[in-house]
Amino acid sequence: MSTKDENEIKIEVEEDTIVPERPDYEAELIAILKSSASDDAIRELLNDYHDNDIAEILDDLSAKERVKLFRILGDEAISDVFAYLDEDVAKEIISELGIDQAVNILESMDADEAVDILEELEDDKRNELINLLDEESKQDIRMISSYDDDEIGSKMTTNYIVIGRGLSIRQAMKSLVDQAADNDNIGTIYVVEDDETFYGAIDLKDLIVARTHTNLEDLISTSYPYVYAHEDIAECLEEIKDYSEDSIPVLDNDKKLIGVITAQDVIEVVDEEMGEDYAKLAGLIGEEDLKEPLLESMKKRLPWLLILFVLGLVVSSVIGIFEGVVAQLTVVIAFQSLILDMAGNVGTQSLAVTIRVLVDENLTFKNKAKLVFKEMRVGFTNGILLGILAFVGTGLYIHIAKGFAVHQSFAISMCIGISLLVAMIISSLMGTLIPLFFNKIKVDPAVASGPLITTVNDLVAVVSYYGLTWILLINLMQITG
Amino acid sequence: MSTKDENEIKIEVEEDTIVPERPDYEAELIAILKSSASDDAIRELLNDYHDNDIAEILDDLSAKERVKLFRILGDEAISDVFAYLDEDVAKEIISELGIDQAVNILESMDADEAVDILEELEDDKRNELINLLDEESKQDIRMISSYDDDEIGSKMTTNYIVIGRGLSIRQAMKSLVDQAADNDNIGTIYVVEDDETFYGAIDLKDLIVARTHTNLEDLISTSYPYVYAHEDIAECLEEIKDYSEDSIPVLDNDKKLIGVITAQDVIEVVDEEMGEDYAKLAGLIGEEDLKEPLLESMKKRLPWLLILFVLGLVVSSVIGIFEGVVAQLTVVIAFQSLILDMAGNVGTQSLAVTIRVLVDENLTFKNKAKLVFKEMRVGFTNGILLGILAFVGTGLYIHIAKGFAVHQSFAISMCIGISLLVAMIISSLMGTLIPLFFNKIKVDPAVASGPLITTVNDLVAVVSYYGLTWILLINLMQITG
Repeated sequence: MSTKDENEIKIEVEEDTIVPERPDYEAELIAILKSSASDDAIRELLNDYHDNDIAEILDDLSAKERVKLFRILGDEAISDVFAYLDEDVAKEIISELGIDQAVNILESMDADEAVDILEELEDDKRNELINLLDEESKQDIRMISSYDDDEIGSKMTTNYIVIGRGLSIRQAMKSLVDQAADNDNIGTIYVVEDDETFYGAIDLKDLIVARTHTNLEDLISTSYPYVYAHEDIAECLEEIKDYSEDSIPVLDNDKKLIGVITAQDVIEVVDEEMGEDYAKLAGLIGEEDLKEPLLESMKKRLPWLLILFVLGLVVSSVIGIFEGVVAQLTVVIAFQSLILDMAGNVGTQSLAVTIRVLVDENLTFKNKAKLVFKEMRVGFTNGILLGILAFVGTGLYIHIAKGFAVHQSFAISMCIGISLLVAMIISSLMGTLIPLFFNKIKVDPAVASGPLITTVNDLVAVVSYYGLTWILLINLMQITG
Repeated sequence: MSTKDENEIKIEVEEDTIVPERPDYEAELIAILKSSASDDAIRELLNDYHDNDIAEILDDLSAKERVKLFRILGDEAISDVFAYLDEDVAKEIISELGIDQAVNILESMDADEAVDILEELEDDKRNELINLLDEESKQDIRMISSYDDDEIGSKMTTNYIVIGRGLSIRQAMKSLVDQAADNDNIGTIYVVEDDETFYGAIDLKDLIVARTHTNLEDLISTSYPYVYAHEDIAECLEEIKDYSEDSIPVLDNDKKLIGVITAQDVIEVVDEEMGEDYAKLAGLIGEEDLKEPLLESMKKRLPWLLILFVLGLVVSSVIGIFEGVVAQLTVVIAFQSLILDMAGNVGTQSLAVTIRVLVDENLTFKNKAKLVFKEMRVGFTNGILLGILAFVGTGLYIHIAKGFAVHQSFAISMCIGISLLVAMIISSLMGTLIPLFFNKIKVDPAVASGPLITTVNDLVAVVSYYGLTWILLINLMQITG
């Protein structure tokens, strides 16, 4: 938000940045549960708390206390709490429960959340549970899990309000009240044709404020945004975000309404997608968390390391060619790491910017050219600055620390400065062109670009540095030592 | 989602991955506007479209067409469209409009969105507009912009439904209907005491399905989650996400309800926060976009490059110490880049993982120790693997390409392998300890860690590599060449 800084609106109010402590709901809940009050009394109290806070304490309870809590809550309420559990915790608890209770809970959960938990279970346990579910839940779960992880359909919920066309306001309101009992996402009411093809959407707000004699048709937006279940998440996420609706309808290829993507789903997906990009930039295949076993982590890190290792050998063998040069003027090797590191850093910066730009918008050729050109300019200007710095800095260093004559020292440092400039320009160019290229051929640029950029940059830097040294210093000026 | 892969629920359905084209609402809208139909007819048609799609076309319209569109929509509807505009576009259009219309539009917008646009304007223009706003909007805008960009209060909206205690269901419903007219976020109804201190929240759904004789008090969750406006976004974001509510109340330090954070605000903030982390990992100070001017981009990249440059000089001067070693056995320099690069890659991986873990959860000491230990194990196991690979690979390479005797070749490649192992262990250790340390002393680990890790790793790698070479190869085995 750097642009904000310049024209910030700052009205002075004495900032009171000491923030009071928020109540510790979890402690309160545990106290309530441990109390000797009657079940009804405890249920009464629990009603005042958020399901997420109840979910938070399950881990801290003994199996016995959990049984008590579940008895008091009842399956319906438990399922609401379950929606907030980490999959692995939910998995544990489900296995604790009797099969009937487990089934009841899964049935009353949103299908997409039930799927997340079921996927954690062993195959036989999972199939046993699925087979016991009522038809509706079974179908929803099958449908959602039939979509690939990268298709938006895999993230949708089947929990939404839907009405037919041609109702009166009063009928629509009635139908809403009936469905609201077991559907949370009531912010938007979806309207379908008799064959369930999507017709339009009504903002609950408009329905609530509408006069009873208004024509329902007038409240329906018939050109309402929607996505197809098979669409690639990365493709449609930005668009879904742009509409900033509490839910966006998901249709099958026959335009039938089969689910919705809620704002909560979007938050989850944004988190995942960006987490993935972030991880890939660091050379990880997917994000890791604390609980992840060693083997999992290695799986995510080793592939890139191996590729980088092999490519590194290529660079090494190229450097090997210049052994002779170095042998005659060993002072130069000290600065190889400097040039390679800077090239690497600049390349990573350009790569990061390019990937984010590619995610944020679908670029026209003009945009791409603009991006490449801009990156080159940034690389050039930064390169000039650091090149001059290197010229002066290393020149003095070589003269003073290494005792070379002034003209020799600055001849050497000039090679360093120029190579640095060249390396930085090429790096920013590669850091942009390579991801754009991979994006073009539909390879994920975030994964593939890193190693290639590093290698190309290293090669260019090494060749320009030692090449220059060889021509200018050794052949022309005959500097050695 | 790697864990998913193993126990995916895959029910075979013939995947129909050809996704049909979605209608081009923007083209439709432009056609409608360019049509010669009457204003009423056009208004009728526009009602069926989403405000975001209308916002999307503003850029493509001529000033004349925009005037026509605005005349047809009217200020109220325009303000809804404005909520979807990029700040910079909104700024342009606001400046086109007459001052009165601009004021009307800003007044009917959510205060937080109005602030975003106002912040884009030149100071005098902004103050002119703010002064003309009605008192309520003025106050809201002043309040929101009085919070720092990193305080959650700066992201809240003042657009929510609030009722007093002790109403009947019918009264509450009535009050909701009245307020719904100009408040979008109706999913949760907030209940306050007479002095406006926060009392609790009612889920609209519960209110709608409630029997009229129910006691409203029974619907209110009094231990409802909330945040204080001055809380640091990074501190409370994860918690807000966990509740996955369509809105979370924001209180001032006197527990008075002053705003709400909607799911849409959360999406925006998640996007920003992760974007920041992502940028920092790449050595950028904040995310960049396509439109950003050269100077802005340089400002974001140069600081780190300069630091890395200076630290790079330190590394260079250390390498300089080993010049003598290299002079006697120039073959070793070829592999310096390999070892440094691998150390760098491993360090970045550990850094990335550590930073994400730090963001996701507030860690106990035990967790931290666990994390450090795990990273070391990953570094060690990967190091062993690559070390052996290097030992064999480079050994053969040196023997064949450089013509060293077998025992010499593998003595040299052993130094490479061992240094690689050492470098990778240290790197994963540094990649974890350094960010944990910065986090401890309340310095943003994402920014500060990178350069320090690189430098420490380079130094360790260089010293162990050339040190080993010197002792083992040159002193003990007297290998030269």
